[in-house]
Amino acid sequence: MKTLEERILKDGQVLGENILKVDSFLTHQVDFGLMKEMGQVLADAYRSKDITKVVTIEASGIAPAVYVAESLDVPMIFAKKHKNITMTEGILTSEVYSFTKQVTSTVSIASKFLSSEDRVLIVDDFLANGQAAKGLIDIIQQAGAQVIGVGIIIEKSFQDGRQLLLDACVPVTSLARIEKFQDGQVVFAPADI
Amino acid sequence: MKTLEERILKDGQVLGENILKVDSFLTHQVDFGLMKEMGQVLADAYRSKDITKVVTIEASGIAPAVYVAESLDVPMIFAKKHKNITMTEGILTSEVYSFTKQVTSTVSIASKFLSSEDRVLIVDDFLANGQAAKGLIDIIQQAGAQVIGVGIIIEKSFQDGRQLLLDACVPVTSLARIEKFQDGQVVFAPADI
Repeated sequence: MKTLEERILKDGQVLGENILKVDSFLTHQVDFGLMKEMGQVLADAYRSKDITKVVTIEASGIAPAVYVAESLDVPMIFAKKHKNITMTEGILTSEVYSFTKQVTSTVSIASKFLSSEDRVLIVDDFLANGQAAKGLIDIIQQAGAQVIGVGIIIEKSFQDGRQLLLDACVPVTSLARIEKFQDGQVVFAPADI
Repeated sequence: MKTLEERILKDGQVLGENILKVDSFLTHQVDFGLMKEMGQVLADAYRSKDITKVVTIEASGIAPAVYVAESLDVPMIFAKKHKNITMTEGILTSEVYSFTKQVTSTVSIASKFLSSEDRVLIVDDFLANGQAAKGLIDIIQQAGAQVIGVGIIIEKSFQDGRQLLLDACVPVTSLARIEKFQDGQVVFAPADI
């Protein structure tokens, strides 16, 4: 997606070997206009697929996911990374290791929000090693629901996430795909859209 | 706000003495239509105030806050509750105690996103003891920016948060105000809108 690639080149910061900081429009400060446009583009890619729920993981996935949900006219669910005293019953969980935060966390969704009738589109801000998406797929499948696809804002194509998902027969649609970082600059692979 | 009060009566669950669970439309599964309507109503209340930024705190504040930001046509910033290895410079922080989660966390915003020119509207899903809002106000004032108001989805009016904010001369606009829980039912106080 051209607008997103241009924004990454303009405002993204490459840190070290493999970190892209996009906190000025996605992961900390949020540009609602870009989120909305990205939400519509991801929704369009799955519009014919009878999606019934959009699932993301807190926190940076929430803004793009809510616009995907709006465009598809379905509810959005954000998986929790931390336990909360109001989560008392029927919780589906999976363990997710975050390479960025260097911790394993238990990701959870209340089972009442997913059923075997559901056709789910997962949306997340980054796809790197695919651990978050894998955890969400695990939870959704525990509920007997079907994962129709994974919609990603920024894919680090030099890491294993995409292949991990394709090996599990889950289609991936990434709005921007980063082939590599070269001299502190982003080099894109052809995006899916 | 009538629509919200009706939704709380329909789908909210009162747990114990003072917990209201609204995970089917706000804190876990998200009804984008309601979020959008609430965002517009809160934005309307501050439309004449030259708001330049909407600030919330991850994670449940993000969905309503992004729609407030859209309606006011300004960026939204979500404060972080957890440290991230990409946050490397110029961070403003404040300590926040969560009665719900029973932990103290360090809430932070990168200083580059707030300046002394900014007129900030804080948006959050719940106002109970006001600790989260107080932490955000502290951070915003550290940046030299002005807090114009706090927009809240659900206020627990039997707790101290509102008074704490009014004592700090910060206007509060709550879409639903809960006076008390009686026999497991919600009793509303008159809402601000």
